[in-house]
Amino acid sequence: MVREQTALQRKFYEVIFGTSRGPGRNFDLALIALIIASVIVVLLDSIPQYHSAYGDLFLQIEWGFTIIFTVEYFTRLWCSPNRKRYALSAFGIVDLLAILPTYLAMLLPGANSLLVVRLIRILRIFRVLRLLQFLSEANVLARALSNSRRKIFVFFSLMLVLMTIFGCLMYVIEGPVNGFGSIPESIYWAIVTISTVGYGDVVPHTALGRTVAACGMLIGYAIIAVPTGIITAELAQEIGREKSRINCRNCERSGHDLDARYCKYCGDRFPDREPS
Amino acid sequence: MVREQTALQRKFYEVIFGTSRGPGRNFDLALIALIIASVIVVLLDSIPQYHSAYGDLFLQIEWGFTIIFTVEYFTRLWCSPNRKRYALSAFGIVDLLAILPTYLAMLLPGANSLLVVRLIRILRIFRVLRLLQFLSEANVLARALSNSRRKIFVFFSLMLVLMTIFGCLMYVIEGPVNGFGSIPESIYWAIVTISTVGYGDVVPHTALGRTVAACGMLIGYAIIAVPTGIITAELAQEIGREKSRINCRNCERSGHDLDARYCKYCGDRFPDREPS
Amino acid sequence: MVREQTALQRKFYEVIFGTSRGPGRNFDLALIALIIASVIVVLLDSIPQYHSAYGDLFLQIEWGFTIIFTVEYFTRLWCSPNRKRYALSAFGIVDLLAILPTYLAMLLPGANSLLVVRLIRILRIFRVLRLLQFLSEANVLARALSNSRRKIFVFFSLMLVLMTIFGCLMYVIEGPVNGFGSIPESIYWAIVTISTVGYGDVVPHTALGRTVAACGMLIGYAIIAVPTGIITAELAQEIGREKSRINCRNCERSGHDLDARYCKYCGDRFPDREPS
Amino acid sequence: MVREQTALQRKFYEVIFGTSRGPGRNFDLALIALIIASVIVVLLDSIPQYHSAYGDLFLQIEWGFTIIFTVEYFTRLWCSPNRKRYALSAFGIVDLLAILPTYLAMLLPGANSLLVVRLIRILRIFRVLRLLQFLSEANVLARALSNSRRKIFVFFSLMLVLMTIFGCLMYVIEGPVNGFGSIPESIYWAIVTISTVGYGDVVPHTALGRTVAACGMLIGYAIIAVPTGIITAELAQEIGREKSRINCRNCERSGHDLDARYCKYCGDRFPDREPS
Repeated sequence: MVREQTALQRKFYEVIFGTSRGPGRNFDLALIALIIASVIVVLLDSIPQYHSAYGDLFLQIEWGFTIIFTVEYFTRLWCSPNRKRYALSAFGIVDLLAILPTYLAMLLPGANSLLVVRLIRILRIFRVLRLLQFLSEANVLARALSNSRRKIFVFFSLMLVLMTIFGCLMYVIEGPVNGFGSIPESIYWAIVTISTVGYGDVVPHTALGRTVAACGMLIGYAIIAVPTGIITAELAQEIGREKSRINCRNCERSGHDLDARYCKYCGDRFPDREPS
Repeated sequence: MVREQTALQRKFYEVIFGTSRGPGRNFDLALIALIIASVIVVLLDSIPQYHSAYGDLFLQIEWGFTIIFTVEYFTRLWCSPNRKRYALSAFGIVDLLAILPTYLAMLLPGANSLLVVRLIRILRIFRVLRLLQFLSEANVLARALSNSRRKIFVFFSLMLVLMTIFGCLMYVIEGPVNGFGSIPESIYWAIVTISTVGYGDVVPHTALGRTVAACGMLIGYAIIAVPTGIITAELAQEIGREKSRINCRNCERSGHDLDARYCKYCGDRFPDREPS
Repeated sequence: MVREQTALQRKFYEVIFGTSRGPGRNFDLALIALIIASVIVVLLDSIPQYHSAYGDLFLQIEWGFTIIFTVEYFTRLWCSPNRKRYALSAFGIVDLLAILPTYLAMLLPGANSLLVVRLIRILRIFRVLRLLQFLSEANVLARALSNSRRKIFVFFSLMLVLMTIFGCLMYVIEGPVNGFGSIPESIYWAIVTISTVGYGDVVPHTALGRTVAACGMLIGYAIIAVPTGIITAELAQEIGREKSRINCRNCERSGHDLDARYCKYCGDRFPDREPS
Repeated sequence: MVREQTALQRKFYEVIFGTSRGPGRNFDLALIALIIASVIVVLLDSIPQYHSAYGDLFLQIEWGFTIIFTVEYFTRLWCSPNRKRYALSAFGIVDLLAILPTYLAMLLPGANSLLVVRLIRILRIFRVLRLLQFLSEANVLARALSNSRRKIFVFFSLMLVLMTIFGCLMYVIEGPVNGFGSIPESIYWAIVTISTVGYGDVVPHTALGRTVAACGMLIGYAIIAVPTGIITAELAQEIGREKSRINCRNCERSGHDLDARYCKYCGDRFPDREPS
């Protein structure tokens, strides 16, 4: 439900949600600093030596961050023209998840594993990336990935089938005595191998196993060319299209080729440009 | 031999082999679910704890899947206009291989290694990929790979020669005392290294061996650029060609985007296509 | 402050700073040889056997190099038209850093760790790369990287967030008993895994941990396509732009290859260029 | 010195050096089989069990191959129109190297390490690759690599400097107690890490060392995009140019763009083609 905003709400809204230069930009920079600082505190607190030495201090700092983020969350909610929409948006949920864990940890003293949930806070950093005017850049990446999502889905399905087959082969060839204890473990080995990570914790020992593993490695080594090719080809197109920056005056859609003279969506004629 | 199909056969044929919306699509979705479920049962059955606890249950489920797939196989055979062609096609053989192992395991109680053959069932999942209308996407990938097959063959021949040479060098330099027990083992090491997997189970220990290994790594690291370049260049061409399939009826120029509805050169409207 | 150069200074300046054929080129080649030789001495001196056997010899050679580079530094300073600008330029600072450590080591006998600083000397090798006329090539690379710096920054931010999330997940899932002693250590593991290095010194042991690790590997394996795509697309544009620098004087069309001597559109002869 | 060939020599020349269908093709196929068989014998002979069981048999087979290749070598020499040119060509030297080691091993009974030299025989397989008409494909690869050789040289120089710097940093940070015994060893570690091979035989243990190593990994992970981009961009151009297959009638040089109407090397006009 869209409500009427008061002047104060509108003012706050512009500062908190806006990215324009001035107060909105400064607010975003302060928020980035706060988020990074709060993440660093969580990281340091997880190191045993630091936890035993400065555990209480970290807890107090953590509460400080939580209170600041709580105030920020309710201010966002208050000044939002459509509260429900913000609360249910991806960023709204991330904002809530960033403050909830500390309160839950107070209620449930043993809930240390929720510590991770606090890390979701780091996802908020994406919101302020727009500050850096990277939006248009990120858009190109996102459109290229979106255009190639079907090809990438086909590719990943193929990879999973391939890894299952290699995992099963190695389970039968090497067997539990060589560390391939079950098919899921063998598939884990296949993923480690075909993705060229190669921990070396599970390794083939028989001649046949090594031959099959070598085939898997060569396939994994070469097949990386496929997603790279897909994304490169799409990115090259997106970058070329980005260059045109033509927006149709009629339907206001962009994404036209450089040599387009009519909008490909509504057929409206573009104004004549100088031949570049 | 192409036979006359009865109306019932034609009806079944359309449902089982078709991918159009409606019954054919629902049949394919059910088949995907069945195939994935049967694969998961095989995976779980290979874990020792689960096998000893639920082994009998898994066996019964396995028989259930086998009977269903058997019925499906014979229905496909029955409603096929050309039975021999289906039986000898790649998918026909995969379908047969998906049901045979369970029957063989009954006859030969010790044939546990045939368990792997049952996994070939997972290959069937490819058949239903067409359901997802990824055919045109997969086509672009397949054509790009097919166009570059000679270059990729040349590349792999080069890689094999390179790996043989590095394997022999390391066998002579490091020798059996450092884990390079024979030339095939050393070639295995070379494949592990040049593909940048790097298990670390066989590792050079001498200064000269490490220098040669470092050269191999740098070559392996850089040479991945070659298949990537080949496939990217072909894919970019295929995507461009895909675009050029659309010709404007008015000005007869091509090169339009796949989502274009108006000619970008003359503004003529394209005939409406089915939303894909 | 730009000073008047004497004839001698101008002569020296041309030899030392110039890259043209003749004396300037020979000076650069001698400098490359000296720099590489001095780096090799540092490398050899760090090997314990060689240090105990030839330590004194290495020290004398090191002093020889230091004196040569000191003379070169002051000559550069002396013949430079703008001394301050040279002294504060990147190469001027590198030149100073290449000679300072040896003198410091004499004053502070225990300052062995400054040995590394001496290695900064290797940075000087970049200066003489221009000798090889690679400048135009390096320019294309540099422009492509510069054009894509925002996209690459967005990509690296995404990677860091991804690695932090995977590190935290694994810290909670695997915990200190499996080698994931703290979140920073787990993030180190995530970087080792997602970059597909895969040392195998820290490895997941639980089924859930292995599943999460497998996801991280697949993401790391596929996501390399993004920077590759970005840089390839930019490089292709840069190379295309490089080509378009040549305009035919007759028909004024561009897009000629770098080795073209006649216009491919009208057959007009291009003015002869220097062989590069 | 070019000699007059007798009819018999010309006949032999066509069969041995030719790749056309018929006798030349059959000869090449037989040669490929012989070369692969002789390499397999060397591989098997290096496995201790097989060597002790079939060592004598392998020796006899090896002599058989050596005699065949000796006869082939002298026949090539005999029927060659320019003997000196063949003997000094890359393939001529490889052919000689393929037969010499066995004779040397007879004279010097302890020369087992020459066994590797015999493997050079595998290089001959390249000569017969032309049989498969892959020449034009390999040409495209070779031209793309040749066009980008300067950029790749710049890239490798940068990589070596980078690896030296990382190796020195880690030597100072981790030191001999953590396995970084000398700067060359640390550079070996840096190459293993930055090329994303990651054996895990040398691994950082301090917090600072792991941080520096993580930076090296991320750089190594992302920087692979540079050679890939270079080669892809060149390959895309080469493939496009290949498509044109226009040879100038005047200077007979190829490599023209698809839209070229005049030879870029001699300015000759191409015959008018249909607009495609």
